[in-house]
Amino acid sequence: MGATHKGAMFQRILVANRGEIALRVLRACRDLEIESVAVFSEADRGAHYLKLADEAYCIGPAAATDSYLMINRIISVAELGNVQAIHPGYGFLAENAHFAEVCRSCNIEFIGPPHEAMAQLGDKVTARGIAEQAKVSVVPGSDGLVTSESEALEVANRIGYPVLIKATAGGGGKGMRVAMNDITLKSGLKAASAEAESAFSDGGVYLEKYIEHPRHVEVQILADTHGNVVHLWERDCSLQRRHQKVVEESPASSLPTAVRQDICKAAVRLVKAAGYQNAGTVEFIVDKDNQFYFIEVNARIQVEHPVTEMVTGIDLIQQQIRIASGEALPWKQKGIPCEGAAIEVRVNAEDPDHGFRGSPGKITKLRVPGGIGVRWDSHVHEGYTVGPYYDSLIGKLIVHRPTRDEAIATMKRALAEFEVEGIATTIPLARKIFDHNAFAESKVDTTFIERTW
Amino acid sequence: MGATHKGAMFQRILVANRGEIALRVLRACRDLEIESVAVFSEADRGAHYLKLADEAYCIGPAAATDSYLMINRIISVAELGNVQAIHPGYGFLAENAHFAEVCRSCNIEFIGPPHEAMAQLGDKVTARGIAEQAKVSVVPGSDGLVTSESEALEVANRIGYPVLIKATAGGGGKGMRVAMNDITLKSGLKAASAEAESAFSDGGVYLEKYIEHPRHVEVQILADTHGNVVHLWERDCSLQRRHQKVVEESPASSLPTAVRQDICKAAVRLVKAAGYQNAGTVEFIVDKDNQFYFIEVNARIQVEHPVTEMVTGIDLIQQQIRIASGEALPWKQKGIPCEGAAIEVRVNAEDPDHGFRGSPGKITKLRVPGGIGVRWDSHVHEGYTVGPYYDSLIGKLIVHRPTRDEAIATMKRALAEFEVEGIATTIPLARKIFDHNAFAESKVDTTFIERTW
Repeated sequence: MGATHKGAMFQRILVANRGEIALRVLRACRDLEIESVAVFSEADRGAHYLKLADEAYCIGPAAATDSYLMINRIISVAELGNVQAIHPGYGFLAENAHFAEVCRSCNIEFIGPPHEAMAQLGDKVTARGIAEQAKVSVVPGSDGLVTSESEALEVANRIGYPVLIKATAGGGGKGMRVAMNDITLKSGLKAASAEAESAFSDGGVYLEKYIEHPRHVEVQILADTHGNVVHLWERDCSLQRRHQKVVEESPASSLPTAVRQDICKAAVRLVKAAGYQNAGTVEFIVDKDNQFYFIEVNARIQVEHPVTEMVTGIDLIQQQIRIASGEALPWKQKGIPCEGAAIEVRVNAEDPDHGFRGSPGKITKLRVPGGIGVRWDSHVHEGYTVGPYYDSLIGKLIVHRPTRDEAIATMKRALAEFEVEGIATTIPLARKIFDHNAFAESKVDTTFIERTW
Repeated sequence: MGATHKGAMFQRILVANRGEIALRVLRACRDLEIESVAVFSEADRGAHYLKLADEAYCIGPAAATDSYLMINRIISVAELGNVQAIHPGYGFLAENAHFAEVCRSCNIEFIGPPHEAMAQLGDKVTARGIAEQAKVSVVPGSDGLVTSESEALEVANRIGYPVLIKATAGGGGKGMRVAMNDITLKSGLKAASAEAESAFSDGGVYLEKYIEHPRHVEVQILADTHGNVVHLWERDCSLQRRHQKVVEESPASSLPTAVRQDICKAAVRLVKAAGYQNAGTVEFIVDKDNQFYFIEVNARIQVEHPVTEMVTGIDLIQQQIRIASGEALPWKQKGIPCEGAAIEVRVNAEDPDHGFRGSPGKITKLRVPGGIGVRWDSHVHEGYTVGPYYDSLIGKLIVHRPTRDEAIATMKRALAEFEVEGIATTIPLARKIFDHNAFAESKVDTTFIERTW
């Protein structure tokens, strides 16, 4: 593992990503007065954000598999550009343990966790075992497949109804049933197994407690290479559409203070048990009684990290870089504030009137909100052409005000200022969300958007 | 005086201004969920920021004297639009005591100080008297005109050399001389008086202590209608070009903590003595030994107010509106923090390569910085045409970071991101300032820009 640079800040970093998160990392490099090297596909050639890099290299055609996912080309540019570290952003190679390992074997620091911890947390069964070892609740269920009706009945009565019957080979809701009692469990087992058999040629099913009105709460953590781990409080990302987060906030307004403390402590225990380092997010599902259950660790920076930056005042990308360079965390847990309320809306080039299909095209007009309490993280501008190749995120609108009510008012104002022409965006959906009382009253869960519209 | 609304928040406010500050006030109205009425001249018809108002009325031709300064038209729109209050912004009618009086005589609250206090502070001799009464130092000098050489020698030796000889009718540096000792005082008196006599037909001169390497420090205050006065710390606005502020910051990095406390307390004493209400700024000149002297009170919101908003977390425009509606200040002095460091750069449509002459025209390309720590307050956008009619400010770039060094790095980064085409701007001057060590080392004064470039 390339440790030659340890203890001294990097002079030069490669950013192995594109768009909004590439710009975010390039800005952090500038803010830290570190030189940067960018890579781009042919589709991103000439993009405005690349000007913020000290150098930029083309690594292939538009398709990510031919450019942003080409490990050998990225390593070549890293060596050519004489960088000491690579920041992977999110998506693409960010959670690829092999890439992290290759970087370090080439004496280039990967700005992220150790590849061993990534690999362990990437395996759901291993991750669940680490959680249990750290005394962090996981969603109760069967130990693997249920092999008979009597075993299923025993498990269901132990964990309590309602339960979810899930096909081990399942996906897209196929082979999935909710059972409310012994009778519907028996019929559901047969139906789910038969459906899974016909869909995936594998009738194996297992049981999990069905969480009604689930909320998604996640905890941001930072862990240095000296054994120090802190949390940076939690984010509520319950507003989702088809498992894609739409609105995120910090703090989680629906959680009592004691639960906030508990969930944050649980996250710290878990990442300590995993031997995790750098920035990471521990994701939980929270039920209507505020019981929380571990889902997974995201071993990278997340799209929604700015809300945490606003309430803590801590630049997470800078901290990732500092940790990777061997610096110790500069604060103890008590030194990390959570001030005011921050909300982020993701702006996607998608058409809400046509099933949220992607809406590539040229942005012919762009009026972006600004002023007090408003942050806009985006690589696009008037005249920018959104291509069909990558994910549809064109920017993140973040507000931060002293109270949640004020943050909501500022978000409404900012959304009112927004104008985008030439492509369809999710801004109309965001306006609908903030015009609805449910968000202001903290009464949303992960099914809210689909249930309501 | 129109007091019918007192104690209840306004439902509807008229914004009697244009451009960046009109947008700033419209945003505050939205954030407070108050309806707004905008006015515009024919030159500003169709401006994007007017969309944020609930209604907008044309009040005349481009020339401000025919529109934004037309008290009768603004009052007519206020009555037509059924508003309870008028926010004057800065410039135009903001410090016109007569306008404030007319508003209130029409039962419309003027969002600003009582007109009596405005009138008193607008008169330099009265303002100086109030300062002395409040035990706030003023620049030492003669009591009015000096009538003989012997009186001038007596005054100069009492206040100490160097002294400034100023013509009472002077302006633009005419009739002004610096005297370092009795000999140059005697010759300077004759020369200044003769020059003033020939230029203004008035040879009267007075003496003032000459402050070498002066810094400009000002204190933001808020005073409610219940007798509560607080300061929101100070701003250093020493970086000026021809008495126009170019860069402002809070806190004032060059002042020792004890001096910061003293200057803020002095400002509070002064506005209390003046019977002042609403937001205001007490301006001081600070010498190289950190002695400060009162200059004047700006009885309005100032261009540079955002740096104070960033370090205190307090929305000053909202507070102006709350105070005018009769609300008491929600905090005591101790409850007002000063966190991190904020810096503002004014971006003007002026050409640094041609003596900073105005540079009207169409903005053909605009790439505005964003991301963490960056605030952009501006009414312009790609395709906006900067007219020749009003002041040249097209936007304010504000950064806020935990430390001053970080704020400077982020400002450099933000300036690097900026691209404006079609018009010339002062961005190149701002880049030069931040590339120079003097600002980072807090070694600038009001003469720095002219001395250096």
